[in-house]
Amino acid sequence: MSDIKEILKKVASGEITSEAAELKLKTQPFEDLGYAKPDYHRAVRQGIAEVIYGAGKTAEQIVGIAHSLAAYGQETILITRLDAEKAAEVNKEISLDYRDTGRIGIIGKIPEKRAGKIVIATGGTSDMPVAEEAAITAEVFGNNVVRLYDVGVAGIHRLLYHSEDIMTARVIVAIAGMEGALASVIGGLADCPVIAVPTSVGYGAAFGGLAALLSMLNSCASGVSVVNIDNGFGAGYLASMINHIGLDE
Amino acid sequence: MSDIKEILKKVASGEITSEAAELKLKTQPFEDLGYAKPDYHRAVRQGIAEVIYGAGKTAEQIVGIAHSLAAYGQETILITRLDAEKAAEVNKEISLDYRDTGRIGIIGKIPEKRAGKIVIATGGTSDMPVAEEAAITAEVFGNNVVRLYDVGVAGIHRLLYHSEDIMTARVIVAIAGMEGALASVIGGLADCPVIAVPTSVGYGAAFGGLAALLSMLNSCASGVSVVNIDNGFGAGYLASMINHIGLDE
Amino acid sequence: MSDIKEILKKVASGEITSEAAELKLKTQPFEDLGYAKPDYHRAVRQGIAEVIYGAGKTAEQIVGIAHSLAAYGQETILITRLDAEKAAEVNKEISLDYRDTGRIGIIGKIPEKRAGKIVIATGGTSDMPVAEEAAITAEVFGNNVVRLYDVGVAGIHRLLYHSEDIMTARVIVAIAGMEGALASVIGGLADCPVIAVPTSVGYGAAFGGLAALLSMLNSCASGVSVVNIDNGFGAGYLASMINHIGLDE
Amino acid sequence: MSDIKEILKKVASGEITSEAAELKLKTQPFEDLGYAKPDYHRAVRQGIAEVIYGAGKTAEQIVGIAHSLAAYGQETILITRLDAEKAAEVNKEISLDYRDTGRIGIIGKIPEKRAGKIVIATGGTSDMPVAEEAAITAEVFGNNVVRLYDVGVAGIHRLLYHSEDIMTARVIVAIAGMEGALASVIGGLADCPVIAVPTSVGYGAAFGGLAALLSMLNSCASGVSVVNIDNGFGAGYLASMINHIGLDE
Amino acid sequence: MSDIKEILKKVASGEITSEAAELKLKTQPFEDLGYAKPDYHRAVRQGIAEVIYGAGKTAEQIVGIAHSLAAYGQETILITRLDAEKAAEVNKEISLDYRDTGRIGIIGKIPEKRAGKIVIATGGTSDMPVAEEAAITAEVFGNNVVRLYDVGVAGIHRLLYHSEDIMTARVIVAIAGMEGALASVIGGLADCPVIAVPTSVGYGAAFGGLAALLSMLNSCASGVSVVNIDNGFGAGYLASMINHIGLDE
Amino acid sequence: MSDIKEILKKVASGEITSEAAELKLKTQPFEDLGYAKPDYHRAVRQGIAEVIYGAGKTAEQIVGIAHSLAAYGQETILITRLDAEKAAEVNKEISLDYRDTGRIGIIGKIPEKRAGKIVIATGGTSDMPVAEEAAITAEVFGNNVVRLYDVGVAGIHRLLYHSEDIMTARVIVAIAGMEGALASVIGGLADCPVIAVPTSVGYGAAFGGLAALLSMLNSCASGVSVVNIDNGFGAGYLASMINHIGLDE
Amino acid sequence: MSDIKEILKKVASGEITSEAAELKLKTQPFEDLGYAKPDYHRAVRQGIAEVIYGAGKTAEQIVGIAHSLAAYGQETILITRLDAEKAAEVNKEISLDYRDTGRIGIIGKIPEKRAGKIVIATGGTSDMPVAEEAAITAEVFGNNVVRLYDVGVAGIHRLLYHSEDIMTARVIVAIAGMEGALASVIGGLADCPVIAVPTSVGYGAAFGGLAALLSMLNSCASGVSVVNIDNGFGAGYLASMINHIGLDE
Amino acid sequence: MSDIKEILKKVASGEITSEAAELKLKTQPFEDLGYAKPDYHRAVRQGIAEVIYGAGKTAEQIVGIAHSLAAYGQETILITRLDAEKAAEVNKEISLDYRDTGRIGIIGKIPEKRAGKIVIATGGTSDMPVAEEAAITAEVFGNNVVRLYDVGVAGIHRLLYHSEDIMTARVIVAIAGMEGALASVIGGLADCPVIAVPTSVGYGAAFGGLAALLSMLNSCASGVSVVNIDNGFGAGYLASMINHIGLDE
Repeated sequence: MSDIKEILKKVASGEITSEAAELKLKTQPFEDLGYAKPDYHRAVRQGIAEVIYGAGKTAEQIVGIAHSLAAYGQETILITRLDAEKAAEVNKEISLDYRDTGRIGIIGKIPEKRAGKIVIATGGTSDMPVAEEAAITAEVFGNNVVRLYDVGVAGIHRLLYHSEDIMTARVIVAIAGMEGALASVIGGLADCPVIAVPTSVGYGAAFGGLAALLSMLNSCASGVSVVNIDNGFGAGYLASMINHIGLDE
Repeated sequence: MSDIKEILKKVASGEITSEAAELKLKTQPFEDLGYAKPDYHRAVRQGIAEVIYGAGKTAEQIVGIAHSLAAYGQETILITRLDAEKAAEVNKEISLDYRDTGRIGIIGKIPEKRAGKIVIATGGTSDMPVAEEAAITAEVFGNNVVRLYDVGVAGIHRLLYHSEDIMTARVIVAIAGMEGALASVIGGLADCPVIAVPTSVGYGAAFGGLAALLSMLNSCASGVSVVNIDNGFGAGYLASMINHIGLDE
Repeated sequence: MSDIKEILKKVASGEITSEAAELKLKTQPFEDLGYAKPDYHRAVRQGIAEVIYGAGKTAEQIVGIAHSLAAYGQETILITRLDAEKAAEVNKEISLDYRDTGRIGIIGKIPEKRAGKIVIATGGTSDMPVAEEAAITAEVFGNNVVRLYDVGVAGIHRLLYHSEDIMTARVIVAIAGMEGALASVIGGLADCPVIAVPTSVGYGAAFGGLAALLSMLNSCASGVSVVNIDNGFGAGYLASMINHIGLDE
Repeated sequence: MSDIKEILKKVASGEITSEAAELKLKTQPFEDLGYAKPDYHRAVRQGIAEVIYGAGKTAEQIVGIAHSLAAYGQETILITRLDAEKAAEVNKEISLDYRDTGRIGIIGKIPEKRAGKIVIATGGTSDMPVAEEAAITAEVFGNNVVRLYDVGVAGIHRLLYHSEDIMTARVIVAIAGMEGALASVIGGLADCPVIAVPTSVGYGAAFGGLAALLSMLNSCASGVSVVNIDNGFGAGYLASMINHIGLDE
Repeated sequence: MSDIKEILKKVASGEITSEAAELKLKTQPFEDLGYAKPDYHRAVRQGIAEVIYGAGKTAEQIVGIAHSLAAYGQETILITRLDAEKAAEVNKEISLDYRDTGRIGIIGKIPEKRAGKIVIATGGTSDMPVAEEAAITAEVFGNNVVRLYDVGVAGIHRLLYHSEDIMTARVIVAIAGMEGALASVIGGLADCPVIAVPTSVGYGAAFGGLAALLSMLNSCASGVSVVNIDNGFGAGYLASMINHIGLDE
Repeated sequence: MSDIKEILKKVASGEITSEAAELKLKTQPFEDLGYAKPDYHRAVRQGIAEVIYGAGKTAEQIVGIAHSLAAYGQETILITRLDAEKAAEVNKEISLDYRDTGRIGIIGKIPEKRAGKIVIATGGTSDMPVAEEAAITAEVFGNNVVRLYDVGVAGIHRLLYHSEDIMTARVIVAIAGMEGALASVIGGLADCPVIAVPTSVGYGAAFGGLAALLSMLNSCASGVSVVNIDNGFGAGYLASMINHIGLDE
Repeated sequence: MSDIKEILKKVASGEITSEAAELKLKTQPFEDLGYAKPDYHRAVRQGIAEVIYGAGKTAEQIVGIAHSLAAYGQETILITRLDAEKAAEVNKEISLDYRDTGRIGIIGKIPEKRAGKIVIATGGTSDMPVAEEAAITAEVFGNNVVRLYDVGVAGIHRLLYHSEDIMTARVIVAIAGMEGALASVIGGLADCPVIAVPTSVGYGAAFGGLAALLSMLNSCASGVSVVNIDNGFGAGYLASMINHIGLDE
Repeated sequence: MSDIKEILKKVASGEITSEAAELKLKTQPFEDLGYAKPDYHRAVRQGIAEVIYGAGKTAEQIVGIAHSLAAYGQETILITRLDAEKAAEVNKEISLDYRDTGRIGIIGKIPEKRAGKIVIATGGTSDMPVAEEAAITAEVFGNNVVRLYDVGVAGIHRLLYHSEDIMTARVIVAIAGMEGALASVIGGLADCPVIAVPTSVGYGAAFGGLAALLSMLNSCASGVSVVNIDNGFGAGYLASMINHIGLDE
């Protein structure tokens, strides 16, 4: 970390030019914590939230990376796949807004919402943890989110009842386990990109989300693409990216 | 074959009693052609069509089995999975009504239609060979069949347009490849049993029908059961069986 | 919920016509609890039991949905995949008849049995939880159920001993893990539809029920269809649907 | 088809109001050719190209659907998965611009290019058929396309050499077989959505594109989503959809 | 080859003792043809037939190996997986008894049949090529073979009719594709070892024999073991080995 | 149970003839405990041990079946897949000889060893539970067992050191996890049947025994057949069956 | 191509300094042929052969790349996965030494052999195409190659007979289909790195090389690593790389 | 054990010649502990560390094997896959240097480092346990190890920053879960052998490391080979073997 701060200090003091600093930052774009090498490129460019993938990291490692990011000036940090116990440990060191359904911790402020509506729909009640991971991610990146939960295709009227939300969205996240048919039906109704998220909800021949994954990859509807099983964060992040297209140009 | 005919002749001539014949038939219920042992049990009981699975059999073997069945008194014989070339060869020996889309050959008369409507729906145009195999099978077993082809879920309005057919069917066969979502949507709309048939239509992650198969097995709609990939015959036969429940009692 | 009751009250008070109410109900067919959107369509039409899939829902959510259904007038509610601990929690709020082998809770009265016999057969003793889920479901939907447990094909005489039950059933549920051959053998003996349920009983190359599933899908017997691994409820529900064909016409 | 034309004629002649026609079109949104039910909803709304999926359809069926679309007023029609032989047959009936690498036929005019650059990158030379399917689709839907072929990760300098194209794209399509790592590396370099297309290029443990598919689904880079193996059309269509966001508002 | 002949000549001429020769043979037990190293160990010990696996070898290579074996004194040679065309080529060089159903070529005399009956049963007519490969192999190794073809479990009476053959066999080979249930049913009826051979007969979820393979591996009957899909030779060879136990002691 | 004893008592008292009893036993060959239908056919014929598969059964069910078998006259009962805790519970009701490595409980006496040696070999130390299940089963069924543990192919000298045991066995059980190559190497060395047992020992791409299973099914050595992953009992039982061939004739 | 030659010419003429040229080459390290971007980095550094992967490229594309490489000064070019027909086409444009068993074409001279022996062993005769691909690759990169074909583990003596070759190799390539046990046995005998190549030789449960692949990945022998199924080139290239370690330092 | 010591004592005392002892050792190369047969061949030849695979062995068995190795003169013993609890138990009997991240225990001294650098790189922080297993193994076998952790391809600059380490290594171990692209990118940058280790890090479609495994096997970079999922030891051992080539000649 010291290296980068050093460089910035030197710019501030006029010791080196900003051009020289820029070059240095380009070739040395991250801090080396030994167990992790957090990347500051994106933050430098865009000022948006940084993300720490919590699974497989100890509370100590998470705190270490978060401190490093904060010291560097990051205002909002999202920690995904963070179980309640680890969240409590992290909270002792850094104040944390923890959302248990989505297993997400938020450090710092949530930015204002920008134009464009993201619809997040689920096939059933059991898909909510993944949906909340997507929804909170999208909100932390500054988006309007409309939640449509438990609108699975076995009761198609529940979905059609919300046709207007679906027709007016800028991007839709369709989340479903079991047979994953929700993505195709929404894809057929909507004119905007649909991000399909298979979930591991189900049993037997659901094979941990494989059935929903294959179903979504084979969607006969155009405009549908797929992320990993249970990857609510990835869907929320990509939805935000698509929703912001045209806004920053 | 001679054994069974022998028995029946002896009954006719009064040589043995019908009771003795019945016993004999119960313990020796089939003819042994060496390469095949056609079973006459069902025909004896019900007088309905017998079926020869054509794949993996030579034209000679098919003709042999058909002759044996005909000699035994069978009036209608269905030959499934029969390609055009083999059909032509069989036709030289036994007159055959060949339907090329469904790859089915029919020997003898098609019975009258009985009460109760069977709807056969497909997701796309490419599912037609499987659908015709199902439809012709159901017709040969004496059923009314309504065909709804190319009503896949990516254009849900096409399916909803046919709601009345779906609501008034006694049993529905839902045929689809790719993501196989048709079965779930129909299952949610209908109050009758839905027989789902995954097809090998599709490419890539369709894995020869596996995606549709898993999707259908995980259907969130109640009342849906599944047969093998591309098994149009099995679906048509089962649909007929269900449709006739209550009629013969 | 209030919406729907509101509508019905208005009909009762003559405020709106029944035709207007019907239209309203068609476009607004469910209540929105946020985490779930229970559907009242079926109950309105048929007066039969509603089903809550208990897995992946909290006790609070189950109670919430059950209260909503009860308030709407539902007399019988079935809760499947309900473990004993959660059942005890639910029981504190709503009186529950809990059957532990089948992991099913029943709220309200069980309807009278109607004509037609459903046979439920298992390959082994270990398949009983799935079989009881099927059997209780069928009973709650008003069917006669005959249980044939531990009649696996490795001791074929045990199955043949029960030939009469098999020959006189209106529909059979064949439940087996390991190699799942029971469905084919029963399918060969019976003249009625056979619903095959693979179970996750077994080890090694049983791959959690995959072996039985594939075996059943490839059944050489006609009239056999398959539901998901361990899906006792689905089989019991479909068996009831088939058994009632012709009765209500 | 007659129905829809009939409606429109009646509007023109003042026989029915446009409001009545709109209602009629909403409830009867497609033509029924028996083997297919082409949907005119989208064209009515947006005036963009219609697509016919050529695989599994006969030349006759393709011509039939194309004629129906053209008669309805569709100006541009895209036929995907069209082999050269079938294209020649179709060309006898309707004039066709056939692109053999991408196995695509175009009927009618290609629209003007609109703002925003779509980069289409491939790992190797053998991925070109899929890439051309994507590129031509995007062009037919009115997009600027930059082709970067054979920039696989085993020679990372080839990819980095094109950093500027990658950094300034509005959306990128990353196409690769074998290990499919291209999507992750591009995802790490770009700030825009990346649509990953696994291809069936490779042998042995590539398992027909499965290795690339799994690799892409597990991408550690954010902003990456995946379509079916070899689904160039789907990627091109989605890229166009994303590229047009904000342009039509 | 010269090495081994050399050794034997030297023994004949008294140049080396038989003990020295034996040692030499033990350390140098095969001839090196470059593309193949045929092993003479077994022949030296037992005087039984040698086997050449024909698939993946050219006719030239097969002839080369056969000549080498013949020159060494081998009286009977079995060539498996030999298609008709290659058989004709081989026949030009060495006289061959070719059996086309089992795709087997036999060079030399077939030994006399020894005590003990091997039953070879198939589920259907299409399993015959595998069954004949097994049956001819067993016959060439000197066994009595009883063929029971087309006795699949969907018509259990056909199998029970042959109970006596099953109860009196020394070893049974059960051959079936599709769901492969034959092995379990026979395993339950018989008291002797059952060798199960899954075949690639079937379609869809048969997955080239995988369904039958898994089914047989999970057989609930004791005394059943399994060989590779379509491995008729392996089953016939093992059946012979088991049948001869006790005879040579 | 009472039925069968009743029959036998009546025979003893002369109330019915032995012929009548035989007929009765043939049609009613098992006792119906509700949760299980233990089969006495085999015991009647052969007087050998009966086996209870312990997994998935409660201690109460095991005791119930064991009591039923014992009451019927069974002298030796083997209970497989019996964990230590359940064994302790069973032992309170029926005296049990429990072997913890092989997770087997034995009720009653172990019969005398008969002629013929069974070799049981393992690739590693971790395969011992499966090996002991096989070895104890074989011993309980009256066989000489030689144990060769940890003779995996990565140290081929360890295996070759035991060549004599391998060359003189009547049947060999080859047990290995990981790559399962032991079966092929032993199959190449031995002249007797080799029963291969894949184990779930290993990690990663061992996929719970799948790697070893596939390896063994594809063995290039003749005379090798395979049982289910970890199926020590099945291998021990089959080895005994083969070892006794010729002894009882 | 012109760019790079341009640069080098300018260096020769003194127009630019060698330092400037080096920089230019680093940032522009390949030629862009549109359909391919051949990389000259390695050749610049090492002067060794370049490789063109022939599968999925047209003869025209291969010739184009080869001309580009030759023009750049490359003395030896290896073309892998080149079928005979395409080789003949290429040969019309550039003189080619074509080896049909290994499906490899060589342009230019084969370098001298350097110290260190590479052993290439196969399980069977059918593995020869893969083995020759490996062997010729290794030879073209300047290595001594010893071929040991058809030394599969089912006849372990054939392998032990060649112990000395195995013990004195610097690196071994072990090639086998079916159960792939060869790698483990060689890995146990040798003290040097073993590169395992699974082949698609086999049938049924070999699943196109999957069985051998899993077997090799789970090898209990240390020092074994694995390349893709049938990847003879990869194994030969890596073997050469390992064999040359220490020679160039 | 006594046998081998006995032999060596007799050599020391002149009782037998060293030649006779050598022969004896060759035929009896291991000690038989019943549950294990530790092999002393390698130690005799090379004096390097012996390895005990700790998983699936009890602490008692580990201690037993370690005592046997130590008694035989082994100076360094590595115990892999040793959890902390078992390590504590072993430590009571034999003094142990336990490294918890890599789950490795070391008995005895670590040898001096020899020439040549091994780089061990990981895609993420979560891959560290596997990386440490590889790194400690390589160190115990006498190698210089450079650790590059968290240099995954989604932030390619982090990897390029370490180009010099990668360009100057003698062998590289590339460790990654999820999409496993690290191996291909490093393989493209480096001129030395790359050993790829897929890890089970990830979720959903990572399928326990399968995605990374397939990705690495299909690497488009030359010089890459693969070991089993999570097999850090195997990679470290092989890296050491390759690194020492040329040093001992």
